[in-house]
Amino acid sequence: MLASERIDDLLTHDLRIIQSDEVFAFSLDAVLLARFCSAPPRGRIIDLCSGNGVIPLLLTTRTAAHMRAVEIQPRLADMAARSVRLNRLQPQIEVLCADLRDLPRDIGYGGYDLVTVNPPYLPVPSGDQNVNEHFAAARHELYATLEDVVRTASRLAKFGGRVAMVHRPHRLVDICTLMRQYRIEPKRICFVHPRAGDEANMVLVEGLQGGKPELRTLPPIIVYKNKTEYTDELQHIFYGTSNELNRT
Amino acid sequence: MLASERIDDLLTHDLRIIQSDEVFAFSLDAVLLARFCSAPPRGRIIDLCSGNGVIPLLLTTRTAAHMRAVEIQPRLADMAARSVRLNRLQPQIEVLCADLRDLPRDIGYGGYDLVTVNPPYLPVPSGDQNVNEHFAAARHELYATLEDVVRTASRLAKFGGRVAMVHRPHRLVDICTLMRQYRIEPKRICFVHPRAGDEANMVLVEGLQGGKPELRTLPPIIVYKNKTEYTDELQHIFYGTSNELNRT
Repeated sequence: MLASERIDDLLTHDLRIIQSDEVFAFSLDAVLLARFCSAPPRGRIIDLCSGNGVIPLLLTTRTAAHMRAVEIQPRLADMAARSVRLNRLQPQIEVLCADLRDLPRDIGYGGYDLVTVNPPYLPVPSGDQNVNEHFAAARHELYATLEDVVRTASRLAKFGGRVAMVHRPHRLVDICTLMRQYRIEPKRICFVHPRAGDEANMVLVEGLQGGKPELRTLPPIIVYKNKTEYTDELQHIFYGTSNELNRT
Repeated sequence: MLASERIDDLLTHDLRIIQSDEVFAFSLDAVLLARFCSAPPRGRIIDLCSGNGVIPLLLTTRTAAHMRAVEIQPRLADMAARSVRLNRLQPQIEVLCADLRDLPRDIGYGGYDLVTVNPPYLPVPSGDQNVNEHFAAARHELYATLEDVVRTASRLAKFGGRVAMVHRPHRLVDICTLMRQYRIEPKRICFVHPRAGDEANMVLVEGLQGGKPELRTLPPIIVYKNKTEYTDELQHIFYGTSNELNRT
């Protein structure tokens, strides 16, 4: 453990995760994506922009698939690998410190049943980035644009495999057009609203490699029922009593 | 009045509309679109696939703009024109019986501040259409495909003008990609769910001719609070106590 690090409970199933305030900690986005995605019972999953590995860690409660967690920042990839060891999950999760753009060339095309990704949400800022570089890389498209992410996900997914992403709804049209351009047809979508009556601030999208057009829009997720308290639904999702977001 | 016809109240502001069970009557889709769209206070509006003209009729409560209602079926266009006269709205609404695909050539490009359209939702059926032709034309893409609709709307809207559409969420990716292809950038979107916990069965989308990418996702609309009773919100929308859907 580095001095700044701590071990947090991963909310569910006695999982634990190493985090640090000096780097980007996992957030609701990742938890929702881990519940939303169509996890195959077996097979192979790859998580891009994996950070400290929270999505593969959470997915171990839903699938026996072998998983790879890919993170470009060595410090975060190292934390992810140590969290995997902490939970004795080395047989199921392998952490790679790599640039996702090189992955199809290095590990092969079309090998995965599911690709998950919680990419940076913001375009590269035009001014000086007077911020912590770890935060900047997690938040801004410094190492990979949305198009890099979608193209790579499409190349890694097998035909009939799925690509699940969480992003800001502002980018939904970009996501839909890029997915279709790279032959990932969006099939399920779910919007997350902070409170009833608020605009959505998060969107979950899952596409099918080579799928036919027909999108299902799941019931929206409302996060808070008042200023600070989670809705019952969110508590079920967050604390693991509801293990999937595959409603209806 | 033809024998099969009746005059219905238009729910709000003492408007009345001529309807008939022999042709397609207006439904919730049209009412929601008339509330959702960004109606300019003045200027020019055109409503495509106008049916019996319900959208322009409802829009008279929100705008002083001059409106054209375009419908390809003579029987429906005639009903629309008679409803306009019944409400003494001839100075504000003009009904055209025309094929929307010919419109830009016949009435000019780029003349409208707002284009509204509640197009047929279903692709052309492959088998025999053993149904009433009026219903078939309102439901199926017999006279115009989604691409015809978006291309025409784009040509009719002025630069900086808006295009507002209601459709099935299944087609959302098609709508987004076609709008962007024809330089209508989707800017506001709103999903309609029959009940809380149901998937969406309707989507309202508004794009800006020549706009920059940045989509806002409005709070969802829930229609029923139980098997038959409208939610309070829907009652406000439907019965006119809430005249716009521009929440937030």
